[in-house]
Amino acid sequence: MNQSAVLKPAASETGDPFLLTPGPLTTSRTVKASMAHDWGSRDASFVAINKAVLARLAEIVHGEGDYVTVPMQGSGTFAVEAMLTSFVPPTGKVLMLINGAYGQRAKRILDIARRKTVAHETAEDAPPELKKVEAILKRTPSITHIFVVHCETTSGILNPIAEIGALAAKYKKGYLIDSMSAFGALPIDAPAIHADAVAASSNKCIEGVPGLGFVVCRRDALAATKGNATTLVLDLYDQWANFEKTGQYRFTPPTHVIVAFHQALQEFDAEGGVGGRGGRYRNNCRVLVDGMKALGFELLLKADLQAPIIVTFRMPAHPRFVFERFYDGLKTRGYVIYPGKLTIAESFRIGCIGRLYEKEMHGLIAAVRDVLDEMGLTSLTAATTE
Amino acid sequence: MNQSAVLKPAASETGDPFLLTPGPLTTSRTVKASMAHDWGSRDASFVAINKAVLARLAEIVHGEGDYVTVPMQGSGTFAVEAMLTSFVPPTGKVLMLINGAYGQRAKRILDIARRKTVAHETAEDAPPELKKVEAILKRTPSITHIFVVHCETTSGILNPIAEIGALAAKYKKGYLIDSMSAFGALPIDAPAIHADAVAASSNKCIEGVPGLGFVVCRRDALAATKGNATTLVLDLYDQWANFEKTGQYRFTPPTHVIVAFHQALQEFDAEGGVGGRGGRYRNNCRVLVDGMKALGFELLLKADLQAPIIVTFRMPAHPRFVFERFYDGLKTRGYVIYPGKLTIAESFRIGCIGRLYEKEMHGLIAAVRDVLDEMGLTSLTAATTE
Repeated sequence: MNQSAVLKPAASETGDPFLLTPGPLTTSRTVKASMAHDWGSRDASFVAINKAVLARLAEIVHGEGDYVTVPMQGSGTFAVEAMLTSFVPPTGKVLMLINGAYGQRAKRILDIARRKTVAHETAEDAPPELKKVEAILKRTPSITHIFVVHCETTSGILNPIAEIGALAAKYKKGYLIDSMSAFGALPIDAPAIHADAVAASSNKCIEGVPGLGFVVCRRDALAATKGNATTLVLDLYDQWANFEKTGQYRFTPPTHVIVAFHQALQEFDAEGGVGGRGGRYRNNCRVLVDGMKALGFELLLKADLQAPIIVTFRMPAHPRFVFERFYDGLKTRGYVIYPGKLTIAESFRIGCIGRLYEKEMHGLIAAVRDVLDEMGLTSLTAATTE
Repeated sequence: MNQSAVLKPAASETGDPFLLTPGPLTTSRTVKASMAHDWGSRDASFVAINKAVLARLAEIVHGEGDYVTVPMQGSGTFAVEAMLTSFVPPTGKVLMLINGAYGQRAKRILDIARRKTVAHETAEDAPPELKKVEAILKRTPSITHIFVVHCETTSGILNPIAEIGALAAKYKKGYLIDSMSAFGALPIDAPAIHADAVAASSNKCIEGVPGLGFVVCRRDALAATKGNATTLVLDLYDQWANFEKTGQYRFTPPTHVIVAFHQALQEFDAEGGVGGRGGRYRNNCRVLVDGMKALGFELLLKADLQAPIIVTFRMPAHPRFVFERFYDGLKTRGYVIYPGKLTIAESFRIGCIGRLYEKEMHGLIAAVRDVLDEMGLTSLTAATTE
C-alpha cells in the first residue's frame, strides 16, 4: 500500500476529487468562478449572454440559419422529455432504437405521455441492426419519428446516427436524437444527418455545471409542433415562441448556471471546438483503456463500438475484488468513478470527459494499481493465476 | 443631476447591481462562493448535503415528521406544475383562487393537463372573498382541491392562507399552496392550516440561487398521488419514491445550486429563521414605502394587503416621467427594479427581498430622488403642481 497516495489525494484546481463519471463532471476553476455574481434574469446583460449561448450551441451542430436552440431548465432528461412530448403529436408513433437505460427511459416518457412506440431493441453491447430497422420502417408506414441515443452511457456505446438519419430521410420520418453525453465531443452535422432535434445538457462535454438542458431544433420542424405538448413547462414550442417575442425565458432560468455555461463555451472554443475537445477525450480514453487492460480489466465493448465518453469494465470475478473497497479506495485517492448500469453483466464505469487530461488519467491508473495492491491483488491477471 | 452617484454606482459584496426584483435576487458572497466546487451527484458527500436541505425545508413550515420535501429541478413553476399535476388526479376538480398572473398560470397548467377547474377570480388588488369561496364549496361537491398563491407577486398582495385552509378542512378538500415568494419570510404552519402541499423555490426568501423548485408535501397525501402524473420528470411521487429507496435524484440535480441552497439555509438559520428574515424584509418594505410615498409615488395596495415581499407602484402620470429612463437611471446607480405585470393599471414593482438591508433601501430611495431630479421632477407631488 502506498501510504503517501492516501495522505495526498489527487485534486482538481479547486481541491475537489476528479469526477470520472457521465456527469456532473469536473469543470474548470474559471467556469465555477463565473458563478460568483448575481444577474437579473430579465435584465439586458443576462439576456445578451443567454442569446450568445443559444446561438453558439446551434453552430456546434452546423445548424446556423436553419436550426434554433431551445433551452430547458432542469436536466438533460427534462430536455429529452420536452423534445419527445413536443415533437411527437398525440397521433404520432415513434420507432425507438434501444440498447440501454436511456433508450428505455425515453420509451417510458412516451408511454406515460400516451404516444405510440415501436421498439427495436438490441443488447447493451450491440448497435441497432440497420437492415431490421429498415424492414420495420417499410412494413410500418404509421411510424412518424425515429428516436436514438447517440452515445448510450449505459455501456458507452456509439450508435450510428448518420446511417439512421439516412433511413429517416429515405422514409420521410422525423428524427430525434438524445446526444446528451456526446454533444460537443463527437461531430454532429444536424442538417447532413437530417436531424429534426438534438437534445443535450450543460454539464457534459461542453463542461458547464448542471441545471440546464437544451434542444437544437430544425426551425421548420419546431414550428410544426404547436399544440402538441401536454405540459406547460416542457412545451418547447411555447418556450421558443417566447424567446422569439421577448428574448427572455418564460420562467426563471438558472442564471448562474447559464453564465457558467457561457464561460464553458468560450473555453470549448479556445480548445478548438469539437475537434480539440473530442481529441482530448479520445486521448484520455486511450490512456484509460490501455492502462486498465494492462492491469487485467476487461472491457464490455469491442473497440469499434466504444465512444470516447465513458468506458464500461466487467466486474472482476476474483473473490478478493470488492467493488465498494475499490470505489472508496479510488475516492480516497481523489478519483470518483461510477457504478455500472448494465442488465447483462456486473460492471462499473469510468468516464473520460470533463476537465481531465492525460496526466489525470495516468494518475487514475496509478491509483487503481495502488488500490489493487491494497486488496492483495498485484494485478487481476496475475491474481487469476496465483 | 448628481454626477458622483453615476460614477460610483452602489454595488453588492461581489460588485453587482442590487436586484430589487421578485427573483433571481441578490445573494450573499458566501452563498455564491459555495459554488466554487464540483460534486458527484451520486457520491455520499453530496447525498448528505441534499438530505439536510430537504429536511430543513420541511421544518420551516413545521412539517417535521408528517411532511416530506420533494425537490424539482428547474424553477418554481416546474415545482408548481409538478404539484398540481401530481396531486390532482385526472378525475379531480380544483377551485382556483386567482388574483394575478401566477394564479392564471396555475389554471393554464391544469387546463393543459386536462384537469377540471372552477375559478374564483378577484381583482389584482383584492383578496379572495371567503364567503363566496365557501358558497362555491357548498354548491360544488365535485371539487377535490383548493389552490391559492400565498403572496401573488403580480401585485405583492398577501392572500389569507390560514382562512382558506380552514375552509379546505371544513369541506374536506385537498389544499395546494404556491408560496413561491413568501416561503421563509412569512410564517407557514402547514399542519395547522391543513396544507397538503406547499411549493416554493431556491431563489426567493431563502436567498439561494435559481435552479431548484421544491414542494413540501404531507406524506399521506403524497402517498395517495401514485399514478396521477402525466409526465415522467414532473412526477412528484416517483421523485419521492426514488429518494426513499436510494437517497438520490432520479435525474441529474443542479449540484452547485443545491450546495449553494444548503449554505443559504445556514445563513437563514443564523439570521433567526422566518422571524429574523421576515423582520428584515418588513423593515426593508417600510423604508421603501415611506421613502417612495414621500417622493410622491402611489401604492397599488392598501397597507393591510401588502406583503413585505414586493411593492407595486402606480406609474406616475406626469408626462416627464419616462419609465425606461427611470429604470436605466436606477440601474446605472446600481439598483435593478422590475416592470409591472398588472392588467388593471400601468405600474412598476420594487422588491424588498434578497441580501438587502435598510442601508440599501435608503440608498435606493436616494437614487430614485436623483433620477427624478435628472428627469426634471424634483418630486412627483411637486411636479403635479408645477
